[in-house]
Order: sequence, then structure tokens, then C-alpha cells
Amino acid sequence: MGDSILNDISHRRYNLLRGSWILVSPHRNKRPWQGLQEKPSRTSLPDYDPECYLCPSNTRANGSKNPKFTETFVFVNDYSAVKEEQEEYHPEQNDGSLASRLLKAQAVTGKCYVICFSPSHHLTLADMSPAEIMPIIQTWTNLYRANLDPKSPLAEAAKALSLPPFSQGDIATPNAQYRYMQIFENKGTTMGCSNPHPHGQVWTTTSYPEEPQTEVRQLSKYRQEQNGAHLLVDYAKLESEQKERTVFENESFWAGVPYWAVWPFEIMIISKQHKRALVDFDDKERKELAECIAEITRRYDNLFETQFPYSMGLHQAPLQGTEDEIESSHFHIHFYPPLLRSATVRKFQVGYEMLGEPQRDITPEQAAERLRACAGELYRKKLE
Amino acid sequence: MGDSILNDISHRRYNLLRGSWILVSPHRNKRPWQGLQEKPSRTSLPDYDPECYLCPSNTRANGSKNPKFTETFVFVNDYSAVKEEQEEYHPEQNDGSLASRLLKAQAVTGKCYVICFSPSHHLTLADMSPAEIMPIIQTWTNLYRANLDPKSPLAEAAKALSLPPFSQGDIATPNAQYRYMQIFENKGTTMGCSNPHPHGQVWTTTSYPEEPQTEVRQLSKYRQEQNGAHLLVDYAKLESEQKERTVFENESFWAGVPYWAVWPFEIMIISKQHKRALVDFDDKERKELAECIAEITRRYDNLFETQFPYSMGLHQAPLQGTEDEIESSHFHIHFYPPLLRSATVRKFQVGYEMLGEPQRDITPEQAAERLRACAGELYRKKLE
Ligand SMILES: O=P(O)(O)O[C@H]1O[C@H](CO)[C@@H](O)[C@H](O)[C@H]1O
Ligand SMILES: O=P(O)(O)O[C@H]1O[C@H](CO)[C@@H](O)[C@H](O)[C@H]1O
Repeated sequence: MGDSILNDISHRRYNLLRGSWILVSPHRNKRPWQGLQEKPSRTSLPDYDPECYLCPSNTRANGSKNPKFTETFVFVNDYSAVKEEQEEYHPEQNDGSLASRLLKAQAVTGKCYVICFSPSHHLTLADMSPAEIMPIIQTWTNLYRANLDPKSPLAEAAKALSLPPFSQGDIATPNAQYRYMQIFENKGTTMGCSNPHPHGQVWTTTSYPEEPQTEVRQLSKYRQEQNGAHLLVDYAKLESEQKERTVFENESFWAGVPYWAVWPFEIMIISKQHKRALVDFDDKERKELAECIAEITRRYDNLFETQFPYSMGLHQAPLQGTEDEIESSHFHIHFYPPLLRSATVRKFQVGYEMLGEPQRDITPEQAAERLRACAGELYRKKLE
Repeated sequence: MGDSILNDISHRRYNLLRGSWILVSPHRNKRPWQGLQEKPSRTSLPDYDPECYLCPSNTRANGSKNPKFTETFVFVNDYSAVKEEQEEYHPEQNDGSLASRLLKAQAVTGKCYVICFSPSHHLTLADMSPAEIMPIIQTWTNLYRANLDPKSPLAEAAKALSLPPFSQGDIATPNAQYRYMQIFENKGTTMGCSNPHPHGQVWTTTSYPEEPQTEVRQLSKYRQEQNGAHLLVDYAKLESEQKERTVFENESFWAGVPYWAVWPFEIMIISKQHKRALVDFDDKERKELAECIAEITRRYDNLFETQFPYSMGLHQAPLQGTEDEIESSHFHIHFYPPLLRSATVRKFQVGYEMLGEPQRDITPEQAAERLRACAGELYRKKLE
């Protein structure tokens, strides 16, 4: 690469997907660390925990009893951040006063789900095979389909899909047509996760949240400027050719450390073909997505031989949106993991990062190289 | 307030300063917490620690010996994120290839300083009186002035200032005219701080970082749309009238929880008059700023009777910029503290927040009310 000098000098890289910059300081990884050390993650959990509200047959805070599920299980979050029903709010009209000019609020309603990834209390995605991850992708797709605007250009594709049904608790049909569905997972106590039972969340809202909306604006702009070309299709193609930031790829997906990664071992999984949302995938593509998720999470755990914490989430077309928003959207997954140098030393996005701009120490190319080298069996299996 | 309904329903608020939204879920504070508990912060540190590289007379990593300083002491960071000298980088020209279109980087040089706030190892801003905080503000001002573009519209004001000199280590004059100076403090191990000796940092770069640049664009837009009015002057005036988000104010500054706060007890200190940067303040204003910093940090520690962690930083005019950038800039300070419910339970900005949009549980008005009630002597003094 002509740009190998970027391994040695401080520089900024431009995140085309968000339209923002990040600072890279490759030389800085050498500084000694005297700060906070994370606790090493617990390793030996039971397969079933009678105290866990996510284990099969246990009772939750609201009194409901979980079924004896065998793959995934979905229920409405007992402590949802948004609710389906609430008092209406009509902001005062702009009467030219300072208050009406400066204080802007809007009501948000929505629905929050929890998805148990497996009946086993001690499993994580890293322990699971692609075949075991498949039901999770099917459940995400089912949930997305059930919430899709019937007038969306995606409705056709959604209807044509044949998917196995999913195990669900007290989920009533939503009362409204929501605008966006954010599917995500917080893994590890460092990432605010309060229960180690493998699970993810889904928040569906009347609002189009900041991050996917910022991205869709950038995607739409590129499409306009490049005669209908899709930014992430072009980007995945380039990365697949250049290889230096690739961690894993198969026919349908590229997975690697983006050129503009903020977190030390940040990863994106990108569909190589233009796919707007989960409902655009066929069975082969879902299998290949499951393979990518398995390959990435296993490498993460192998990197520092620990339960690697992260937040991950899917970005795709809104449930309801303009044709341009939906057609510009391009399915991808972000993994944001905080660890930097070992199982106990993380990167802090704090003072300068919060007030100036995000900053990283090792380069994305160095991170990708290390993750590529972590292929193979899960370290825990070898220890058994 | 007509909008008291916002205490009960989920809603979004618009951050005028950044041009972005955040999600507020007031009802959600009631959920039980089973996740990570922070370690309570250490309380009894010695006044002098022979192992601390920030204490007077001690030797640092690079072999330099700190002087016997009595107020503040400034030196160049031994592990700077940006350097003054590095190999030059000339990105390949845009030749229409995917690589030149999608992979954008630019070199950044700069200088990183550390400022010891006091010779005492165990003090924090919360322990210090306004008179003891004054030298810190004077040092910030001195450093800003020393790095200011001589052609800046601020140069006049800077020259006219009379300030006491500051104690400094191996600080040579910068080799270049840098564009922005980010002054900040990380306090507490939770905020990535690796040494409890009271200190802040200053990173000066050839780039205009994302956050202040995003803000200045919004400030400039408002000024254009409102016939030269300044957003933060109007905003501080409104808050000072409405009072419900005010935590403390004096003649020159308003300090409170912004309407669009992301962190539970986030605070902004805003100059009531239009001031572009530190060099625009006279001695009375510096004293009033010191008073605000003392009042805020003391209340923070009183809130949960702990060493309250935060990242804080100053936003002001760039060292070098267009006339519009400099004249639109308005001096303010952000405090971003992570604690939510006690000394050991923090708010995580993780999955939804990273992938969707920032989210908070208690309302800014509730947070301000609690902080107002924490006035008075520092809890530690009462325990003595
Ligand atoms: O420079 P320090 O104090 O060693 O490091 C701390 O502050 C920096 C600036 O916010 C961050 O980049 C680091 O992640 C954090 O640990
Ligand atoms: O919903 P949970 O898992 O209890 O909570 C976790 O994830 C949420 C969504 O990212 C965050 O808002 C919380 O701060 C975090 O602790």
C-alpha cells in the first residue's frame, strides 16, 4: 500500500458513511497504562440459572412465565424506554418567543422487545455455530416483517419470504405504524449488559433515530452523485480487493475493520449486493450472514482469550419511509467493542473524544491483521 | 411550566447547539439494576505521593524533573496523541478510482500539554475555592494566548490582557500555527483518568475537531438567521428567566442542565454576554467563572457523596479561523458525568445509544432540581 506511512503518523480519516472525521494516533499505543483495569469476565456459568429471568420456564418481573423455548424467544421489555400508549403531547406553536424558538421537543412512542438468543444461560454468539445463529437471524427478519409498513416498497419481498415461526411471549400487534426498528445487542457488563443470558434487544419507534438517519442521508447523497451507485456496495468491493482491512468474507458479505473505525477492533459486516433490509435476503444469504457473525464473534473472544464485550447492531431500511430513504438504505452490521490491549485494558472515548473528536491508537489495518490471525477454534474449547 | 407532561412521556429533544436529537424516557428510571457497579472512589490520598509523576519535584517518564510549583504547572505530554514533527503525508490525487473516492485521510500535527491544577496530590476542583481555581483559568488563558494566530481578530484583546506568568516545564514555542486548542479534564478512573493528581489536558491541532466545528456551524447559522443574535446568549437568557434547569448563576455566567442534556447530570456553563474565547474575559469575569466551576464540582461531589467522575472541556473560538468562525464562537464549558443513580450505578451510552441515538432516563429538569439542592459545604468537609 502506498499509504503505509499512515502506520506511523498522526492523521484523520473520513467516515463517508457518517460524514465525520476521526483522529488516528498510531504511535500512541506505546504509552504505559496506570488507569482502570476491567475485571476479567466470568467464565463458568451454569446452563440454567433459576434466578435468571431469561431462562426457559422462569418467571419475569411482570409475573409472566417464559415458555420452554428451544431456539429463540421474544417478549416485550418490562422496562421499555418507549411505550405504545402515553398521554399526547402537542408542543406550543412557534409564537416567535425565545422559548418556542430554542426548546424543541416531540413525543415518541414505540415498542421494545427482548430476544433470547438461546435457552442455554451460558452460551454466547461466539460459542454458537452458524446453524445455531440462523434462528436469531430468522427471528430478527420475522419481527422486522411483522412491523413493516404494508405500503413500503419492501412489502413485496417480505410477503414472498418463507420463514419458520418464532417463539414469542406477550407480543400484541403494534398499535401504530412505527418508523424505525433498531436491532442490537449489548454484550458484557462493560457495555451496560445486566444479564449474561445471551440476548439482544429491538427498539421500534415513531422517530427515525439520529445514527441511521445520518447514514441514510450520506447514502442517498452518494447515490445521487454517483449515478445510482451504492456507497457500501462500492466500499465492500474495494475492501474485498484491497484485503488489508478484511477479517472474513464469503460470497454475500464482507466483514472487516472499516477504514474509519473509531473503536480499536470495530467491525462492519456489509452485504456485497445492494440489499435494503433483512427481508431482502434469501436462505443462502441468511446462512452466510450467520457464518460471518460466528466468525467475527469467535475471533473477538480469541483475541484476548476472554468474553469480548461489545455493542452490535443492524442498520437497514426504515419500517416506514420515503422511497429514497428505503432504496438508499443498505444492510450492514456494526460491532463496537471497547477493549484495546488486553482483556482488562479498554479504550476510553472520553475527554478529547467527547469534546473534540473520536480518537484511536492502533490503525484499522493493524487491528484487522490481528483479528485475521485469531481464526480457528474458540479458545475456551481448546482449554476443555 | 406548560410542558410538565414531558416529565411523564417518552419524547425527543433537539440539541440546537449540535443540530441533533436525543431520546428521553423519564419513566425508565424505575427499572431495577443488576448490571455493573462501579467501585466507590478512593477517598484518602496523601498530599504528596513519591510515585506520582505529577507531584512537585518528582521525575517524569522522559527524565525531566518537575519544579517545586505552588499553583499550576504545565508540561508537554510524554505520550502525546499528536506531534509537532512527523513525516509528511500527501494523499494520492483523486484519479476517479474507488480508492481515491472512498478512502480519505489527512495528516494532523499538534501539541499536547498536561496542566497540574495544584501541587497537592489529593485535591480536586471540588475541594478548591474560587481563588484557588483562578490560577487554572489564568493558565488556560495564557496557553490560549500563546498559541493564538497573530492575525486573529482576537489578537487585540489577547495583547491587552494582563495575566500572571505560569509555571512551565519543557514547553518550546509551537512550530506551526495550530487551528484549534481543546482544553479538557478527565476526572476519575471511570473516565479513563490514569492519575488522581488533579490535572487537565490541552490538545492543539492543525485540524478543527468535529465537535466544536459542528457547533460553530450551528452558531453561525443562527446568527445569520436571527440578524446577528447569538444562540447561546439567547439561550442563557431564556434559561436564566425560566430557572427550572438552572443550577447556579452569577452576573457573567449561567450554569445548568441543558434542555437537550444527554448524560444524566450533564451541565453547561455559558457566558451570558457574547464572549468568543478566554482572552475576552476580564478579571471579574474570570473570578465569576472560577466561582461557577467551584459551585458545580462541589455539587457534583455532594450529589452522591463521592468523587464524582466526569469529562469536562471548554469550547471557544479556534486559534486560527475565518472571521465568521471566530465571531460566531461563544465561550462555554461542557461537563459530561456518567453517574445515574448512586456512586456506583452509571448510565451506559451503549447499544441503542451508539446505534440509534443518545438516550436518557431522568429529565434535565429533575436533574437540575437535585443539583440545586446539593449546594453548601463539601460533604467530605462535614465528615472531617
Ligand atoms: O491521556 P490520558 O489521560 O492517558 O488518557 C485518557 O484521556 C485521553 C483523552 O481523552 C483518551 O484518549 C484516553 O483514552 C484516556 O485514557
Ligand atoms: O435495557 P438494558 O439492557 O437494561 O440496558 C442497557 O441497554 C440500554 C440500551 O442500549 C441502555 O439504555 C442502558 O443504559 C443499558 O444499561
